[in-house]
Amino acid sequence: MREVSIIGVGQTPVGEHWDSGLRHLALEAIQAALNDAGRPEVDGLFVGNMLGGEISRQEHLGALIADFAGLRGIEAVRVEAAGASGGAALRQGVLGVASGYLDAALVVGVEKLTDRVGSDRTAALLTGVDADYEGTQGATPAALGALVMRRYLHEYGLELADMAGFSVNAHANGSRNPNAMYRNLIKAESFARAPMVAEPVNLFDAAPEADGAAAVVLVATERAGDMVPNPVRVAASAVATDALPLHDRPDPLTLTAAERSARRAYQQANVGPENIDFFELHDGFTIMAALSLEAGGFARRGQGWKLATEPHEGIGLEGRLPISTFGGLKARGNPGGATGIYQAVEVVLQLRGQAGENQVADARLGMAQNLGGFGATAVTHIFTGT
Amino acid sequence: MREVSIIGVGQTPVGEHWDSGLRHLALEAIQAALNDAGRPEVDGLFVGNMLGGEISRQEHLGALIADFAGLRGIEAVRVEAAGASGGAALRQGVLGVASGYLDAALVVGVEKLTDRVGSDRTAALLTGVDADYEGTQGATPAALGALVMRRYLHEYGLELADMAGFSVNAHANGSRNPNAMYRNLIKAESFARAPMVAEPVNLFDAAPEADGAAAVVLVATERAGDMVPNPVRVAASAVATDALPLHDRPDPLTLTAAERSARRAYQQANVGPENIDFFELHDGFTIMAALSLEAGGFARRGQGWKLATEPHEGIGLEGRLPISTFGGLKARGNPGGATGIYQAVEVVLQLRGQAGENQVADARLGMAQNLGGFGATAVTHIFTGT
Repeated sequence: MREVSIIGVGQTPVGEHWDSGLRHLALEAIQAALNDAGRPEVDGLFVGNMLGGEISRQEHLGALIADFAGLRGIEAVRVEAAGASGGAALRQGVLGVASGYLDAALVVGVEKLTDRVGSDRTAALLTGVDADYEGTQGATPAALGALVMRRYLHEYGLELADMAGFSVNAHANGSRNPNAMYRNLIKAESFARAPMVAEPVNLFDAAPEADGAAAVVLVATERAGDMVPNPVRVAASAVATDALPLHDRPDPLTLTAAERSARRAYQQANVGPENIDFFELHDGFTIMAALSLEAGGFARRGQGWKLATEPHEGIGLEGRLPISTFGGLKARGNPGGATGIYQAVEVVLQLRGQAGENQVADARLGMAQNLGGFGATAVTHIFTGT
Repeated sequence: MREVSIIGVGQTPVGEHWDSGLRHLALEAIQAALNDAGRPEVDGLFVGNMLGGEISRQEHLGALIADFAGLRGIEAVRVEAAGASGGAALRQGVLGVASGYLDAALVVGVEKLTDRVGSDRTAALLTGVDADYEGTQGATPAALGALVMRRYLHEYGLELADMAGFSVNAHANGSRNPNAMYRNLIKAESFARAPMVAEPVNLFDAAPEADGAAAVVLVATERAGDMVPNPVRVAASAVATDALPLHDRPDPLTLTAAERSARRAYQQANVGPENIDFFELHDGFTIMAALSLEAGGFARRGQGWKLATEPHEGIGLEGRLPISTFGGLKARGNPGGATGIYQAVEVVLQLRGQAGENQVADARLGMAQNLGGFGATAVTHIFTGT
């Protein structure tokens, strides 16, 4: 199998882009990524998108975006795995280049969620969970998050306030990211006073639904070094799944797909969690951050929350395992099917030493994990700049 | 790049499956394909689906179907390219096995269209064309078909009756396919009397929107022969795109993406159209059959229709280039994102000599071409049994 490297990255700010459609957002990220890569020829486009049909009445984004980006004629397809659509599209791009069928693949994640509000948007988001058994019961993502978080607090004898560190860290990092949706700092005390979304999930536990697009350019590693001065190699690419409905999982406090895909990724890269320098995890809800740390082998079962209690020792930029280094889903924002590509872009910026005020010192091995349907799909990538 | 072969195929009947959901239809096809392949371990699932969100309020079909099929934990993803979703999913499965990342990939195309009727279903189908410039104008697939067909008839001085042979052939072949939706024979005279759908597209020009699922199992060619007695090799796999909206194409009478993807496929397989023994083309509308023959190099511009005027010399089972050998989209039915996999299954059955009454004599090299968004995405595969 051919090794694959990233030679260009691009992103739009995350937020409410009411003046741009899916194609415009995607174009902005694609142009930035192609410019960053020195404008190579590309022969494949993989679009990660979750709700183009539900929100914008637009499916078939592969052909649409290829044409709008001036790439008419190339191979193009859309990839969907709910909230993990971006990561899944990156995976398909890796397969395309690794197979030898494609010389250079462009992967763009794009989402517009804010054109629908209230129950319209919730109904759209419910298509990512089990429609027959969860969707019809009104088991929204926030409701599912609440069920799991309540169980976690109960099982390990915790208070809600014990989880505050994740949001504090995310907002601290987001405050220094010009592309983040939320750039305000928050304190543990304000976390404790935040209004409830779905008890015990509060406003500062839930990542904001947002619009945005991010893109990467992939080529074979053997030629990447000749094309750009700072290629980043895909050291591992792994997808795993779990039961889609929460009630079919033997243990709701284990993100089994995240665990499986991380394990496969470690095997591919021949590393363990102890070798990972920073981790862009899927903090759609605070509880998912804690469970992702446990699934990734960074904390034992029931101990993930502890890493957030001392940001400077644990998950902070100078901690043992920095997470959400540009704000994560919580503060950078969660533009659905674009999120997985934002994570990849952020890992690349860290490994290139281009993370500015958010730079993790000595970042050599970065991991990104994108989840969909409360962890029913998990996509894990490990990247290295060396 | 590793060569890839198909070692198992499965399908459900095409029709109105009001008593089955997406997961049930997919399961039936998957079980049939796995049984046909001798029940191998599979490590990847690619789901081709177009309108699960719009029609069934269910996205995220990768994880859902993997679990329901008893494959919880494996890599799984949904692939979408409007009507070409099935072919695009097959392409992703080929990339997965060719890359070496996957040992055995299951590809299932599944669609349920008949749970919505009238303007609800039309609105859903409109998400496959350009929502901003065609969808909002009510330019339905049938309306687009009518525009192109009228131009074709005008440009080449034809009558509607000159196109009857495509439907007559499709229904003749469908009448002998137990999985076909329409098994009635039609005559050229009844074609001439058929009510209009969108003039000049009549009822016998337009393929029926249907429910169904079909599946194939892919492994590396090097081990396929040890697993089953009759593997079918993927000799070519190529995707190309065109402008999504019809009005942005320089020539509406050329299916440029179909032409491009066929050309790439011929190059990969090192063959030309003269070597293809039969062709499962995308006859969503009669005019698309004629244009696909021209795009594939089987007829010169403006001459595609002639191949249907003498079924026994042209497109009939004993003709020079049999097409739609199991009824095509027209008579077998068009279950959206499943159609591309039905085409692949039918090519495999022909190459194995298992096509029963529909068998093409000496079938050695078969081509399948799946189109989406009136040809904005074209996926071409060439298969060989030898």
